[in-house]
Amino acid sequence: MFTRDAVDPADPNYGAPFTLEQAQQHISKSPVGNRITWHQALPEEFLASTETTWDIAVLSHCIWYFESPESLRNILTALKGRVTHVCIAEYALHATQKAAIPHVLASIARGTLESYRNESNANIRSPMSPQAITQVATQVGWSLQRQCTGIPELELLDGHWEVSSVTHDHFVREIEESVQNDRLKLIIESTRQATVAAVGTLNGGKVGTMDVWVAIFSLAV
Amino acid sequence: MFTRDAVDPADPNYGAPFTLEQAQQHISKSPVGNRITWHQALPEEFLASTETTWDIAVLSHCIWYFESPESLRNILTALKGRVTHVCIAEYALHATQKAAIPHVLASIARGTLESYRNESNANIRSPMSPQAITQVATQVGWSLQRQCTGIPELELLDGHWEVSSVTHDHFVREIEESVQNDRLKLIIESTRQATVAAVGTLNGGKVGTMDVWVAIFSLAV
Repeated sequence: MFTRDAVDPADPNYGAPFTLEQAQQHISKSPVGNRITWHQALPEEFLASTETTWDIAVLSHCIWYFESPESLRNILTALKGRVTHVCIAEYALHATQKAAIPHVLASIARGTLESYRNESNANIRSPMSPQAITQVATQVGWSLQRQCTGIPELELLDGHWEVSSVTHDHFVREIEESVQNDRLKLIIESTRQATVAAVGTLNGGKVGTMDVWVAIFSLAV
Repeated sequence: MFTRDAVDPADPNYGAPFTLEQAQQHISKSPVGNRITWHQALPEEFLASTETTWDIAVLSHCIWYFESPESLRNILTALKGRVTHVCIAEYALHATQKAAIPHVLASIARGTLESYRNESNANIRSPMSPQAITQVATQVGWSLQRQCTGIPELELLDGHWEVSSVTHDHFVREIEESVQNDRLKLIIESTRQATVAAVGTLNGGKVGTMDVWVAIFSLAV
């Protein structure tokens, strides 16, 4: 009766402190767990493989992983007529808390570097702003119903991880390997240094995670 | 006895609320004004045109205007043996004050856009970090003696101007005209939206200007 399909293309061993598989097993053992079917697939491929319809589609922190904004466009187009609402959670590109400002800067540095790479497995490949996501959704026929932003607790480690990957020396080598143009190198290195400087003013305090944008879309009438 | 040469390639009518010419006249009328000779020239060309030596060279908020980091390298190389100290003032790519965070983000957005343009008259073409400037200086034989950062008063309008130019709709058209690659467009648009979001949290308050880095270099021995 209630079809719950959960789609993630990642390797079951991906993730920390718990792997994707461990997280899925945790949910499967919950009171609602037996309603959920897990699919290791790309969302576009999954939608093409079935004619199932649902009431709601939830895109939870997946858009920034997409190879390009075209993936979002294809998914939102494929969902038309198959769900009545699309709920989206994604980073807001904004930090209410000072501790999360390095996360905003690091995501821009990482996003700029990845934009030069054809093959990338980084977590940030399409760091679309809430405005850009809303624009694509509107263009394919979805209408923004409600939106708000939330501030993650310091226990959420995503900001810390992203910032660590950008401030680490390895990131400098990644720039050297991926970017030929000196002016482009310069701006990515400067964005990295802006991240380092923003971490510096936390006086050793924890790096936080930026605000999360949450939005509900329905089919435009 | 005391030779004071002041070099700026800009048009005398450039600048607001006072033009460059007005600012120069203001200084010339001061008690030390008659010691200063103004030169409308590129620093590299000026240094090649004379064999004058000085005690100190001051590079005051000029590096970000340079066409590429090579200009800085050439100038610092040409100054060897002709001054004993080089003093540098440039933006720190860091904002101590919340009101200046939009300026950091706007300068990254502008810098990334300009890195794709061969011909540019923008104020930000080589937004080098203090670390990158120090690295170039060290490579050509200068040694960092002292450094500190200062926080500009809200009356300094540079942050406000740069942020306005990036948050204005015109910047979106500049991206469209200058950048072909969709993924590159995305990251510049996202950095622009991060700037807009950072302005939004000032609740209508003034946009500030980011910290200024000040450094003194001497010849390494």
